[in-house]
Amino acid sequence: MKVTESDDVISFAGGLPNPISFPIEALKASANHAITENGSRLFQYSSTQGYAPLREYIAAKYQRVHGLDIHADDVFITTGSQQALELLGKVLIDKGDGIVIEEPGYLGAIQAFTLSEPTFYGVTLENDGLNLEELEHALQQPNVKFVYTVPNFQNPTGLTYSKEKRQQICEIMAKYDDVALIEDDPYGELRFQGEPLPYIGAGKLENSILLGSFSKTVTPGMRLGFIITKNKELMQHIETAKQATDLHTNIFSQYVIYDYLANNDYMEHVQKIIALYKNQADAMLNAMEEFFPAHVDYTRPEGGMFIWATMNNGASAVDVFHKAMDQNVAFVPGDPFYTSKTGVNTMRLNYTNATPEVIREGIKRLGSIL
Amino acid sequence: MKVTESDDVISFAGGLPNPISFPIEALKASANHAITENGSRLFQYSSTQGYAPLREYIAAKYQRVHGLDIHADDVFITTGSQQALELLGKVLIDKGDGIVIEEPGYLGAIQAFTLSEPTFYGVTLENDGLNLEELEHALQQPNVKFVYTVPNFQNPTGLTYSKEKRQQICEIMAKYDDVALIEDDPYGELRFQGEPLPYIGAGKLENSILLGSFSKTVTPGMRLGFIITKNKELMQHIETAKQATDLHTNIFSQYVIYDYLANNDYMEHVQKIIALYKNQADAMLNAMEEFFPAHVDYTRPEGGMFIWATMNNGASAVDVFHKAMDQNVAFVPGDPFYTSKTGVNTMRLNYTNATPEVIREGIKRLGSIL
Repeated sequence: MKVTESDDVISFAGGLPNPISFPIEALKASANHAITENGSRLFQYSSTQGYAPLREYIAAKYQRVHGLDIHADDVFITTGSQQALELLGKVLIDKGDGIVIEEPGYLGAIQAFTLSEPTFYGVTLENDGLNLEELEHALQQPNVKFVYTVPNFQNPTGLTYSKEKRQQICEIMAKYDDVALIEDDPYGELRFQGEPLPYIGAGKLENSILLGSFSKTVTPGMRLGFIITKNKELMQHIETAKQATDLHTNIFSQYVIYDYLANNDYMEHVQKIIALYKNQADAMLNAMEEFFPAHVDYTRPEGGMFIWATMNNGASAVDVFHKAMDQNVAFVPGDPFYTSKTGVNTMRLNYTNATPEVIREGIKRLGSIL
Repeated sequence: MKVTESDDVISFAGGLPNPISFPIEALKASANHAITENGSRLFQYSSTQGYAPLREYIAAKYQRVHGLDIHADDVFITTGSQQALELLGKVLIDKGDGIVIEEPGYLGAIQAFTLSEPTFYGVTLENDGLNLEELEHALQQPNVKFVYTVPNFQNPTGLTYSKEKRQQICEIMAKYDDVALIEDDPYGELRFQGEPLPYIGAGKLENSILLGSFSKTVTPGMRLGFIITKNKELMQHIETAKQATDLHTNIFSQYVIYDYLANNDYMEHVQKIIALYKNQADAMLNAMEEFFPAHVDYTRPEGGMFIWATMNNGASAVDVFHKAMDQNVAFVPGDPFYTSKTGVNTMRLNYTNATPEVIREGIKRLGSIL
């Protein structure tokens, strides 16, 4: 990533929220307010599961918004959702166990799970979700512990599972009740088009695990994510692993974020981010329409932060990356998002960190070499 | 621990800093100042190795105070020093590898390393440091990756390695240059008696690893610790593991702590904690002198947070714990601090979280049942 961060480069490579979306003044006020109200409790060691009012807030929201029977004891606060992935790897995977992952899939998840040395079974991610035949086949492999999905505005593709496919996947998973279904949903609230859809397994499957984060809607710098599961045994294992890993999540930040959520209009704030990202996504899609040759396909995300482009002229994304860098444009070639392929013809383009004008210029330059 | 936290119980069980030692107003001012100065940089994703000015501050301090040739690139910020232990376990231990640990040793380290499934070789911690004969024997076992020590005011015993023993251990370690020496030093600045001593291996051994923390001198709630090593290959592995584990340490807190360190008289602050803890340690030692029977031995720490008591009348610490709870007094029986013993006759007593009057009353009650 380092080469892509020079000032002259137009970078579509990162996956950062737009810093103008951070509610800085409100978080500053919350830091002051939380310290005044709670004093030394922000600064002392704290509980491994996380700050109870924050867990209650999250549970109430999942009840209200998603109609799920979630209570504070079903919520576990993590040091960002990256740590949620790492803890799930630790407690669910023994070396060599199988895990099922979208192909292409989220790089951070691949990195986190790799620490536990699983066997990856990649299942093709189609426009409407996982390929069902491949999913069934993967679930029949030995010692499969979980299926990992990003159902909304997936990283890296920006794709969203359709309602029908969610139901079909749930029906398949119900037959394999020892296999957990992880739904990682950092972007779900950032929908700028279409209707929200129900989760695949949450509220339906016994071994459902939901992951969430404040990184894409409030601030990633405070590293606050969470795991939701009604499996008590799993929750106990997560707590033991978390205790040994970093004792507990930064309690100062938990108080600040909770104070922010309790005293601000969060939905109004999220609407502002949605408007910002919709404008940026439209700018990128319009520029692609104008400047990309016909052999390049690309996704049309309904939310989130990424567009996924596929070159159908035999070019390799890594080769194109080097040519693009000569034009001072950066993106992430698709290779690291696959567990078993290289030399792929796909690329991830992030639109949340440049103005519409800069996006248009970057896509124009990129189009000239495709 | 949960049973020991009722209001009626006098608890010597925890290991918490005294909350009156937290510089709350100064940290509040630093939160405001850091946000005003740096804006969105406190809230965005950040570098895996940690905030550069904070690493520079730490490096400069180790140069100045300890005369060590440490630079910012030799410092890695972790989510508390618990995470430092966990990352070192991840990168240094393959299942079954040997690690050498003090017996009794720090429970958090045992828990962190256990995640990587090592073979523990316990070496008796004597009044002046590790037993040298046992250390040599342990180092001759197969695949030993590191020796883990807490040289100053050890947890759980409060013991400090003598200058002579430090030299002897360094000479022994120099013969085993593939084996790292971890010196975990969260309490080193909290010395209320005697002269500071040089580290065992830092500045002398190639595979020296120092661990430090802001948890015992500023605040544990922000979970900020650090690893210092000049081994570049090890540092690279730590960075890769950290990236997969939680991306980076909470950057908001790194800015706040750095601002606090840059704009306050840290040494004056530490002197206040030292005076507080010395008074509490004296109260506990005086009460032990007055109320403990002659068959009980105990350490006389020169700093830190703990006293270690040994009962020489055949009693088991777990039995005594239950009797003590009937008297509403709590401590930690020695058992969890050993990797291979149970039914031990030792106990850890923390003195930093009660007033001298309450300490005297608690030790009086405990003395009555010993």
